[in-house]
Amino acid sequence: MTYTDYLWFNTKKRQEFVRITDEVAVIVAKSGIVDGIALVSAMHITAGVYVNDWEDGLIHDFQEWLEKIAPAGLPYRHHQTGEDNADAHLKRTVMGHQVVLPITKGKLDLGPWEQVF
Amino acid sequence: MTYTDYLWFNTKKRQEFVRITDEVAVIVAKSGIVDGIALVSAMHITAGVYVNDWEDGLIHDFQEWLEKIAPAGLPYRHHQTGEDNADAHLKRTVMGHQVVLPITKGKLDLGPWEQVF
Amino acid sequence: MTYTDYLWFNTKKRQEFVRITDEVAVIVAKSGIVDGIALVSAMHITAGVYVNDWEDGLIHDFQEWLEKIAPAGLPYRHHQTGEDNADAHLKRTVMGHQVVLPITKGKLDLGPWEQVF
Repeated sequence: MTYTDYLWFNTKKRQEFVRITDEVAVIVAKSGIVDGIALVSAMHITAGVYVNDWEDGLIHDFQEWLEKIAPAGLPYRHHQTGEDNADAHLKRTVMGHQVVLPITKGKLDLGPWEQVF
Repeated sequence: MTYTDYLWFNTKKRQEFVRITDEVAVIVAKSGIVDGIALVSAMHITAGVYVNDWEDGLIHDFQEWLEKIAPAGLPYRHHQTGEDNADAHLKRTVMGHQVVLPITKGKLDLGPWEQVF
Repeated sequence: MTYTDYLWFNTKKRQEFVRITDEVAVIVAKSGIVDGIALVSAMHITAGVYVNDWEDGLIHDFQEWLEKIAPAGLPYRHHQTGEDNADAHLKRTVMGHQVVLPITKGKLDLGPWEQVF
C-alpha cells in the first residue's frame, strides 16, 4: 500500500527552518498505513529535510554553522549562470535532502526529541 | 511485510563508534524478508547511523575531522538551555542519522567494504 | 513487489561526478513498480549518491568545497594501511551515500531540477 502527498511552502527569508512533524503525521494518518515507512523528500534542490531537536538556540547554531562551512557570497562558479544561491545548494547537502521515517502501529515512530524540519 | 525492532546502546564515552552490521543482519534474518529494504535510524538526536569502512585509522580520522568541522566547546546558543552537546547535534548531521539498506535473497546486500556504524 | 539491479561505473579520474538519473529511470520502468520508492545506494565506500542541480558551475563548486572541508593529502591515519584515499571516505560522507526516490504513476517523481548523481 502506498500513499503520496505534496506539501508546499512559501518562505519569506533567504533561509528558514520550518518544523513539519505535524504535517507529516497528518499525511501518515490519512494514508492508513499501519507499519511501513514515510519518505519525506525536498523536491527543490536548495531545500533540505532533516530530523533534530526543536530548540531555538540549536536552530540558531545550525544557521551559524552552515554559514561557516558553506558561506554565502563567495565567487561560486554557479553564479555565472545568474544564480546567487550556490551556498544554499551546499548547505542543503550538509543537512540532507530527505528522511525516511518509520511508521509503527499507524503512527510516526520517532524518538522523544525527534522533530522533522 | 514489515518487521520492526529496536536496538539499545549504552555508551561510556562522549563519542563512540559502534559497528552494528551483525546486529542488523540478525534482525533482517528474523524478519523473514527476502527482498526489500531495512531502515536503520537513530532515535536519538545526537546519534548518527552511517555506512563506511571498518578500519580503526579511518574511524580515528572521522573523529578528528568531525572535531574540526563541528568543534565541541564553542559558545553554542543551545548551551543556554543547560545542554553542552550542540556539537554532537552538528556532528550527527554530517554523518547522517539513518541509512536504508537493501535486502536481496534474505540478506543485507552490502558492498565488500560496507559496514554499518 | 521489489526489483533489484546493479549499475557499474569505471571512472578515470580520482574524482568524478556521473549523472545517473536516466539509468535509474530505465530501471524503474523495467521494475514495473507504479507507486513506491527506489533506493539508489553506492556499494563502494568512497562513492556517494546525491540529488542536486545538473549545472557544470555548481558541480565545480561542489568539488572545490569538498576539497576545502575534507582535503586530500593530509596525514590521515587511514593512510598507514597503505591507502591514500581517506579524504574520499570523508567527502562521500558529506555528499551522502544513498538516496531514496519516490516513484509515482510508474515514474521517478522528481522536482523540476532534481538530478541524481
